[in-house]
Amino acid sequence: MLDYNLAEKGELSLYEYLYRRIRDDIVSGVLEADDRLPSKRSLAQHLGVSLVTVEGAYAQLVAEGYVRARARSGYFVNALPGLPVRTALVQRSATALPSGVVAPAEAIPKASEDSGELARLWSRALRDALANEPESELFSPAPPQGLWRLRAAIADYLCQTRGMEVDPSCVVVGAGAQTLDNMIVQLLGHELTYGVEDPGYPRLTRLYRANGVKVVHVGLDGEGVRMDEVGAACPDVMHLMPSHQFPTGRVTSIARRYELLGWACAEAGSRWIIEDDYDCEFRLAGRPVPALASIDATGSVIYTNTFSKGLGAALRLAYMVLPGQLMERYGTELGFYSTTVSSVQQVALARLLESGAYERHVARMRKRYRELRDEFADVLAKSGLADRVRMEEADSGLHFVLAVGTSLSEEELVARVAGPGLSPMPLSSCACLPKNRTAPDGLARLVVQYGSLDSEAISAFGAELSRALA
Amino acid sequence: MLDYNLAEKGELSLYEYLYRRIRDDIVSGVLEADDRLPSKRSLAQHLGVSLVTVEGAYAQLVAEGYVRARARSGYFVNALPGLPVRTALVQRSATALPSGVVAPAEAIPKASEDSGELARLWSRALRDALANEPESELFSPAPPQGLWRLRAAIADYLCQTRGMEVDPSCVVVGAGAQTLDNMIVQLLGHELTYGVEDPGYPRLTRLYRANGVKVVHVGLDGEGVRMDEVGAACPDVMHLMPSHQFPTGRVTSIARRYELLGWACAEAGSRWIIEDDYDCEFRLAGRPVPALASIDATGSVIYTNTFSKGLGAALRLAYMVLPGQLMERYGTELGFYSTTVSSVQQVALARLLESGAYERHVARMRKRYRELRDEFADVLAKSGLADRVRMEEADSGLHFVLAVGTSLSEEELVARVAGPGLSPMPLSSCACLPKNRTAPDGLARLVVQYGSLDSEAISAFGAELSRALA
Repeated sequence: MLDYNLAEKGELSLYEYLYRRIRDDIVSGVLEADDRLPSKRSLAQHLGVSLVTVEGAYAQLVAEGYVRARARSGYFVNALPGLPVRTALVQRSATALPSGVVAPAEAIPKASEDSGELARLWSRALRDALANEPESELFSPAPPQGLWRLRAAIADYLCQTRGMEVDPSCVVVGAGAQTLDNMIVQLLGHELTYGVEDPGYPRLTRLYRANGVKVVHVGLDGEGVRMDEVGAACPDVMHLMPSHQFPTGRVTSIARRYELLGWACAEAGSRWIIEDDYDCEFRLAGRPVPALASIDATGSVIYTNTFSKGLGAALRLAYMVLPGQLMERYGTELGFYSTTVSSVQQVALARLLESGAYERHVARMRKRYRELRDEFADVLAKSGLADRVRMEEADSGLHFVLAVGTSLSEEELVARVAGPGLSPMPLSSCACLPKNRTAPDGLARLVVQYGSLDSEAISAFGAELSRALA
Repeated sequence: MLDYNLAEKGELSLYEYLYRRIRDDIVSGVLEADDRLPSKRSLAQHLGVSLVTVEGAYAQLVAEGYVRARARSGYFVNALPGLPVRTALVQRSATALPSGVVAPAEAIPKASEDSGELARLWSRALRDALANEPESELFSPAPPQGLWRLRAAIADYLCQTRGMEVDPSCVVVGAGAQTLDNMIVQLLGHELTYGVEDPGYPRLTRLYRANGVKVVHVGLDGEGVRMDEVGAACPDVMHLMPSHQFPTGRVTSIARRYELLGWACAEAGSRWIIEDDYDCEFRLAGRPVPALASIDATGSVIYTNTFSKGLGAALRLAYMVLPGQLMERYGTELGFYSTTVSSVQQVALARLLESGAYERHVARMRKRYRELRDEFADVLAKSGLADRVRMEEADSGLHFVLAVGTSLSEEELVARVAGPGLSPMPLSSCACLPKNRTAPDGLARLVVQYGSLDSEAISAFGAELSRALA
């Protein structure tokens, strides 16, 4: 029977502690593939915790692919492709880790009550910084990688919300994700082949092509990017959105994560993964799957993230975390680049992170997105379309996929339902290769970005959809 | 006799008007090569203006290479390589044009009373923008090229201070010159060869190499980049600093400018000039030579500039002006890039430009730099080194070259005179090719950046120099 000392849980909830201990036992091999976990009821009795606590921990393990549930026979440990694992991750079971954070969003927040709140928060942050910080900090040029203070605040934030151990000296701040992506090409090399997910984020393909490098497209299955296609396309670099793939919303399973790390580590030093964690803060249900960067033992993962989702796209501020050997190369080859973010903005953001105001703000946004999503589900349920329409991947903020049974094409459907308040995108428009443009189940799929909507727009959309499918 | 209607001078000074009219007559062919200008005295009498006015106009024409003076025989028009000239430039003789602006500076202003003023100006601009502009402008994402309002203000500023007619729809704002330079490579192509001046700005070589493109180095003579070396090195793109070359401080002559434009236009559409006008605002004496972009009739010149010299390097804000055909290409191929500058900063800068506060600030800085330079000259004159030390190219702000007769190498000299207040650079350290590292006259040359110095540091430097040369 699994035996954990609950007194060691620290500040974690019982559910979270239990989930982490079992996960760590799987990762470290204490629990092996196909081992059967104790039944929920018996483990609850054994540990003296409520059944709900165990249920929550098991559900999370299933969601992340560590464990599978078999009807009427219980829970079994999944096989994880073998890979050296950072000991830090294994040992760091009950220390400060993810609080209530989680997954994704692509929509640029548009003018709405929501963007009003972003504006007030950022405006206040700038005014506070101007009023309270010394001129020498606000108006002296920041170092190429960004102010140490901001990099340290980002490292802390990643530790608290994402469970990542990050050295601030490996953080590089830049004026938006694209600026950093361009820098990554210069760092890794123009002679490499860059792989992107398909369907994916079409601008990424354009960015790599503008850099004059070869781009290949790799299809997806239910667990993430297809390894057979990775093998066939032979990229040197895979640019992935494992937390919440855009546009499909899919979460890369833990097994697939290890396969990807295994792929990279088979040619360590010449194969790389760019982990684009753009909306990890807006997971609405369940816990986030560990970042690839946090379980990368060979230094093959470049982690990138942005503050555009949390603070709006008008603020150009993103960052990357480089593995050690690339950090050295950055210093030697790209250290001549000046930072692309003004010192004032770096200080203002550092203050928001240090005070916890940013995390509170994200929690408020998450709550609002959850309400909007639930409202959406409600409207669809009441529309009488429940048998023809399904919300997919709706556990992450700001966008979900709406699967629709219809003879209309995705483009035709969009043309009928798009209104001034809400204009979904055909999922197929995000695919580059023809074979990735149609789903095997024949359903039409729309990408719905709902972060800046209100109740009225959601009702109107429901009505349009009913008309279109009538 | 030259006959100009002085009543048409508008707001220009008599000197300025006269200079412009003669220059335009040379450019448009009314005055031809080797034509002799009337003597200063007779022209003054003819037009009914003071001798000083004519002297000023002639001196400026000589400085810019339109005219040569021959001892005891007068002033003659120089041959300008034939080239179609924008009619707008010729017609626009007495309309709003450069007021009192002018040339260059490379030093990043360091902590000093000077950077205190920059800080106060920019701090106030940000606070004013936050207090007075609507949230919808400050916190909505700006278009990819930047806010129209800022681009229009930049176009106005270039017209007023540089005599350039710029369409705001061809202006692109970016987070620093390097960000724009990277974009230019993506726009022009990775298969091209990029030429840079040697000695020059070493980071440029690194930037092009980081982009994976071929870089060639082209030497200089007294008039600018050597055309024979341009021909031999076969660049497709020449990256130039014609207003005030870094580090030599040289101003590219007008004849050389036309040769360069002729070079580009011989293969228009596949040869390009990047005109880096980084410190055109800080010319301390004489008028600025016209920008290449303002006399480019074939759309081969990309003009770039930065606000780092005027507002400090902590503010990351630069811009470029693309010729029409490249603007179209930008829209098609790079239009997917988001702007790299936050909306708040774009609005704050637009307000500074619109109100004239920025121009007044630059005028104050120019005055201070002129005083610092004069103080430098004074200290050197009084040091008893006048016969061994010469300030070169000191008519442009923020840096000059100090030519020194000594058996010490430039590195040895720097080691002896560098102090905490002032650390000059060996000129040779900015050269890439060995042949460009030594001057034919055998003098050691130091690049002195004096924008952030005070009287004490200048005196201390004079004393160190005396000791080193004793």
